[in-house]
Amino acid sequence: MIKHLDHIGVAVKSLDSVKEVALSAFKVDFPRPEGEGDFKASWVKMGNILVEFMEPIAENGVIGKFLKNRGEGIHHLCFEVDDIEAEVESYLAQGLELVKPGIMGWPGWRVAFFHPKSTFGMLIELVQTRI
Amino acid sequence: MIKHLDHIGVAVKSLDSVKEVALSAFKVDFPRPEGEGDFKASWVKMGNILVEFMEPIAENGVIGKFLKNRGEGIHHLCFEVDDIEAEVESYLAQGLELVKPGIMGWPGWRVAFFHPKSTFGMLIELVQTRI
Repeated sequence: MIKHLDHIGVAVKSLDSVKEVALSAFKVDFPRPEGEGDFKASWVKMGNILVEFMEPIAENGVIGKFLKNRGEGIHHLCFEVDDIEAEVESYLAQGLELVKPGIMGWPGWRVAFFHPKSTFGMLIELVQTRI
Repeated sequence: MIKHLDHIGVAVKSLDSVKEVALSAFKVDFPRPEGEGDFKASWVKMGNILVEFMEPIAENGVIGKFLKNRGEGIHHLCFEVDDIEAEVESYLAQGLELVKPGIMGWPGWRVAFFHPKSTFGMLIELVQTRI
């Protein structure tokens, strides 16, 4: 079962520009630490919603490619679920397709991404936090 | 002040295909009535979030053009605010740009759309419900 929208991911050219606008116009907090990968992220709280702004480090990384193809904009929606195995199995049975086979994870988190071509152009991330 | 994310708008080719997937895979409700304009809409509740799926009626309408340019995908984010005049004025002062000048409205609702070129590729709708 989907519990709630965990966050919205947004691809941007520059996190510095986001901070400038977000802090002054939206008057928001940055509640999560920045991560590192082939992109770096800043987490912004807008009302009740977390927004993960992502700036590419590598041009051919996932966010670099997205920017090249689509420009800045919303990259994914992440929903927290109560049982990620059951949800993934159920969605696959309905014809939805994963970006990569299986469920990925790192300590405390397990995630799966459904491909936009099977979900009306939305990249949908499911996450289950590990107890 | 932003109160909360009211809904996410998604442009789609066919609402029938959405209903088929959403009802079976996501197991969601349709909590708001369908509207009519140059697009028609189905409202879906996914977890705690309302998603407005929009299918074009007119090819040159706002959703028709979006589909032609971008394909299916997330079209806008709508945040409910407590004082839409103050929010719009504050955002304009920070350099953000409205899609159309002024605040639009209809009975019970007042809305303003900020242009994606000034908000990192996100079309942001602000809404204030009228008391």
